[in-house]
Amino acid sequence: MHESLITKKIIAYSLKKIMQETPFQKVSIRQIMETAEIRRQTFYDYFQDKYELLSWTYQQEISENIRDFLDYEEWEKVLYRMLRYFEANQVFYRNALAVSEQNSFDTYFYEHTKELFQTALVDLARKNHAELTEETMSFVSAFAAHGIVGMTKEWLFNECATPPEILARNIADVLESTMKGMYRSHA
Amino acid sequence: MHESLITKKIIAYSLKKIMQETPFQKVSIRQIMETAEIRRQTFYDYFQDKYELLSWTYQQEISENIRDFLDYEEWEKVLYRMLRYFEANQVFYRNALAVSEQNSFDTYFYEHTKELFQTALVDLARKNHAELTEETMSFVSAFAAHGIVGMTKEWLFNECATPPEILARNIADVLESTMKGMYRSHA
Repeated sequence: MHESLITKKIIAYSLKKIMQETPFQKVSIRQIMETAEIRRQTFYDYFQDKYELLSWTYQQEISENIRDFLDYEEWEKVLYRMLRYFEANQVFYRNALAVSEQNSFDTYFYEHTKELFQTALVDLARKNHAELTEETMSFVSAFAAHGIVGMTKEWLFNECATPPEILARNIADVLESTMKGMYRSHA
Repeated sequence: MHESLITKKIIAYSLKKIMQETPFQKVSIRQIMETAEIRRQTFYDYFQDKYELLSWTYQQEISENIRDFLDYEEWEKVLYRMLRYFEANQVFYRNALAVSEQNSFDTYFYEHTKELFQTALVDLARKNHAELTEETMSFVSAFAAHGIVGMTKEWLFNECATPPEILARNIADVLESTMKGMYRSHA
């Protein structure tokens, strides 16, 4: 591993440690770097601000969790892995998602989810012989991403009461139905 | 009109006036009542806090805008009217939806939307001969409400660039497709 990646992971680990008890809004960069035992200024060699660190942490950890499945059109497994990851880090993500405003983490989470599942939806459209314009595809991806993000947040704030495999199945079912119905509507 | 309804509407009107320039978080009850020219204490005869006033304002105005269509299964018109109302009050709602946290307006907006479109989805399921359990219906309604709320917020923060009839059609298209596909999946 590159030294810079190690440093970034140490900083991310400190953020995660602090956010076991502290909402993201109250975390300071001073506190992160004191916990990391690295001098404060080093933070800015890697991240612009704490928002960028939070997005990087998610992006980094989620790819480690799902990369084995991305090439195989196994997107329900991708979804399941994503939810399992959230479940295992639920205190952290409840603190990350508690307040939402411009440029906050949930915007990043939404954009990332939209991109991640766009490919799945294109595959599903192909399987169902639905010929959709790029515009329709992009609208459906955005709508679906809002659905996925909304249900995931609701589930997280509900202490992950439903098992992740059930939530993954329910979401997959809605997405599959939508693309099946798209075929019937646009055929 | 009952006197109490008149008073509530005056208070709501003051909130709307202030929020042409001020984000909801920065509005105080003192300021609302000064603008309304009513003594401050009267506020609490009608509302618990400014959050309740904001939800009441939405609920009151949206019902005035859609009530003529609710009985006729014309839910795409309900959706269109809802979007037209948001467009006409976009500065107010951008200020209302800018920050989201526990119990903030977007939670109310989501709950209201879920309830409003649950009936539409049940009708669509019936039309498409999809026999769905109550559990599935409730999941689909929640997922769809997150989609509708997400797309509406995105559209509002994008200065309502798309005409409301196009957005209403696109949303209706996704909902119809989902229920059509549900029939195919659960048949």
